[in-house]
Amino acid sequence: MAASASIQKTIYLGPFVHSQSLTELDICEQGAIGVDEKGVIAFVEKSNPDVEDIKSKDSAWKDAQIVKITGNGFFFPGFIDTHTHAPQHPNTGLFGKTTLLDWLQTYTFPMESSFKDLNRADRIYQNFVARTLSHGTTTCAYYATIHVPATNLLADICLKRGQRALVGRVCMNSDLSPEYYRDASVESSVADSKASIDYIRSIDPSGEIVKPIVTPRFAPSCTSECLSAIGQLAKETDTHVQTHISENKNEVALVQELFPESKSYTDVYDTHALLGPKTILAHAVHLSPEERQTILERGSKISHCPASNTAITSGCSPIRTLLNEGHTIGLGTDISGGFHPSILDNVRQAIWVSRHLSIQTSSDAAKLSTEEALYLATRGGAAVVGLEDKVGGFEVGKEFDAQMIVLGEVGEVGGRGEGGIEEGPVDVFGWESWGEKVEKWVYAGDDRNTVAVWVRGRLVHKTGKYRGQE
Amino acid sequence: MAASASIQKTIYLGPFVHSQSLTELDICEQGAIGVDEKGVIAFVEKSNPDVEDIKSKDSAWKDAQIVKITGNGFFFPGFIDTHTHAPQHPNTGLFGKTTLLDWLQTYTFPMESSFKDLNRADRIYQNFVARTLSHGTTTCAYYATIHVPATNLLADICLKRGQRALVGRVCMNSDLSPEYYRDASVESSVADSKASIDYIRSIDPSGEIVKPIVTPRFAPSCTSECLSAIGQLAKETDTHVQTHISENKNEVALVQELFPESKSYTDVYDTHALLGPKTILAHAVHLSPEERQTILERGSKISHCPASNTAITSGCSPIRTLLNEGHTIGLGTDISGGFHPSILDNVRQAIWVSRHLSIQTSSDAAKLSTEEALYLATRGGAAVVGLEDKVGGFEVGKEFDAQMIVLGEVGEVGGRGEGGIEEGPVDVFGWESWGEKVEKWVYAGDDRNTVAVWVRGRLVHKTGKYRGQE
Repeated sequence: MAASASIQKTIYLGPFVHSQSLTELDICEQGAIGVDEKGVIAFVEKSNPDVEDIKSKDSAWKDAQIVKITGNGFFFPGFIDTHTHAPQHPNTGLFGKTTLLDWLQTYTFPMESSFKDLNRADRIYQNFVARTLSHGTTTCAYYATIHVPATNLLADICLKRGQRALVGRVCMNSDLSPEYYRDASVESSVADSKASIDYIRSIDPSGEIVKPIVTPRFAPSCTSECLSAIGQLAKETDTHVQTHISENKNEVALVQELFPESKSYTDVYDTHALLGPKTILAHAVHLSPEERQTILERGSKISHCPASNTAITSGCSPIRTLLNEGHTIGLGTDISGGFHPSILDNVRQAIWVSRHLSIQTSSDAAKLSTEEALYLATRGGAAVVGLEDKVGGFEVGKEFDAQMIVLGEVGEVGGRGEGGIEEGPVDVFGWESWGEKVEKWVYAGDDRNTVAVWVRGRLVHKTGKYRGQE
Repeated sequence: MAASASIQKTIYLGPFVHSQSLTELDICEQGAIGVDEKGVIAFVEKSNPDVEDIKSKDSAWKDAQIVKITGNGFFFPGFIDTHTHAPQHPNTGLFGKTTLLDWLQTYTFPMESSFKDLNRADRIYQNFVARTLSHGTTTCAYYATIHVPATNLLADICLKRGQRALVGRVCMNSDLSPEYYRDASVESSVADSKASIDYIRSIDPSGEIVKPIVTPRFAPSCTSECLSAIGQLAKETDTHVQTHISENKNEVALVQELFPESKSYTDVYDTHALLGPKTILAHAVHLSPEERQTILERGSKISHCPASNTAITSGCSPIRTLLNEGHTIGLGTDISGGFHPSILDNVRQAIWVSRHLSIQTSSDAAKLSTEEALYLATRGGAAVVGLEDKVGGFEVGKEFDAQMIVLGEVGEVGGRGEGGIEEGPVDVFGWESWGEKVEKWVYAGDDRNTVAVWVRGRLVHKTGKYRGQE
């Protein structure tokens, strides 16, 4: 496949920024990152290196191509979206005043059921994968629908475009879902999931780009028997698992009603063999301390979806508390409960949600810093999807998943910037420190500032402002 | 001046959307709006009118030019920004973890003091006015700095670009402000304010485009003597007044300490003759019921700045309660406490803040609907700045302040839309209702979707996607 083809050795020259720890950004004002034919970082030079020196010192790099930042730019790790629903993309922005349970019935199930039409699925998935790439998302954990052909198609598109993806056929057999959109039986739920796992492993046997993920929608969507069978399937096939947990208070009450023998929402997953180190739990807004302890003991991961939690009024997940307790956390856009396919937008939303928690509690303790939110968007997310050794930062041995960020430059005369609308929303006047430039990007930037995106050293997206290899 | 020059009679053809009431949008799927040589709306046809019919029925329109919507577009009233600080634009996105009082000292005062340099002021103001226009802001209430020349320059720029503006020289004489940036005395504060009022009235005597506004920064920035003198000046010159009120709890405590004889923050302004029907009060987050009653009785207006209140953790203004009580409310971007110069972004933020209030109170009562937030952004804002009879909607007799919104169209093959990055972030698949298209714009749109902007029928901004007059 093209996605795993050998690439030309490349030296990326210019400023780069990545998380050094949860609380610190490492800003290198002029560096060089050497990426080999397999897309792996071979060296990182941080002290204003001379490219001719590098080439002459090691003959292996003498023919390397150069990708150089010009203007107010820097390299930043690709974003990891740890939770989103690709088929809900056309519903982005549509939720009115609904909350979770009526929102599912009104908007979500009718849209998802239409993915039995493969042409329609193709049009929407092509569009959505292009969108997420354009926002700098180099890895994405996707929920598809119950349909095997459309789910497999989503995996095909990700592989072809070169976006790392966990792609999950949704399991849902309970009568919470309408008759027109649910698995016919426990057996078909397992068999269809298995078919999709097998297909995805057949197109990318090493799982370098796309991987299957077992996806029970959420506890109320599945019978106990189905949850057990799906838990068993995940174990047998050694796949990741993704589901939702404790998003909304009415949902939590519903789970208690449907699973009266369980101690908690978390206990439902735990007693059905669905809570392990490869499990991604989205939302985690209303968990009790006991539930959080169980999740920690099982090593399961948390996907924080701040835009969605605000938009459908689910609540404020106490992310600072969860971080202090040692949870592994990434960000999720949760389209279309969330209203924006950009992780950068969710970096902001995570900060706003934490400030609203701070307002509620009259304490600064809840606040996330810019650095922390960027960590969640990159290294945190990488750990959630089990790729912490491969992506999330720029170190030797990691694969080069990156975005080139370029910020707008205000000319001497003022005005809107030479590039007009393509310059994007960030105005750099020239006196800003590097830390301030990064903050301007975080708080005002958008996809216009992401001028190029690489996965494993392969260029997977670019805008008209990308000047390309020298 | 060019801004008041006669224009060609124009018929705007296509869908248009505006607020019918606080809770209802009027969506006309195919209409015509006739705008005369003075930029005033002469007729509105709502039932799929034929332009040749219109021209033949009334010979006065036979040579009118046509501006026609193509694709997924509609006309929408220009936005009103009822509160922003133009000189703080370069600080957009920079606030770290500060809250109001330390944020002023760290970021704001150093930046504002630099506007004694007129070249620097020119570069920043040119850039900012271009920015706000590009976001569809046709009327803006600006705080400038204490400097008369730079304040006058901002008014010049607005007049030249044709953006309606209230432009205020900031009054601040107390020692809350650093010695390097404050009015030298009460007398100079009044004299400088008067000089700026006189200048602005000299360049636009009818006040059709730019008007002066008396601008005591906020109570802690002024001595009691200064507030009285400024209140007297506003009365004598019959100008609008703008100031801040009850943004942050520490600020409220500080006001009580500085003005121990006053019953409340509101009472400070009331007893200094600064609370009248031409007064715009920004924030109003922590007002008591008694203060809200006083504001209502004086007929003063409220500027809600949701992005700013979230970003610097000020609190959630209870806008639904204020609306129920009958207050007149608009939206303000409050750059750079706010992090985005777009009122559309603040429409979203107003909805999110209301949802966070709903989360805090476990009640749906606090929620603002999409319709309500759009009303605040247009008709509400128009009433706040005293222009409710002139702008905010499309009715005969009103002036044509409008934006042409065009949404991206997803092709049959999917992908990112034919126009690439200029298409903007909204994906329309073709099956959406008109209400859904408007919601997609509100929740996912940005300045790329605002392809043209008019003030009094004069084109004041356009992007490469604007096809122009036929």
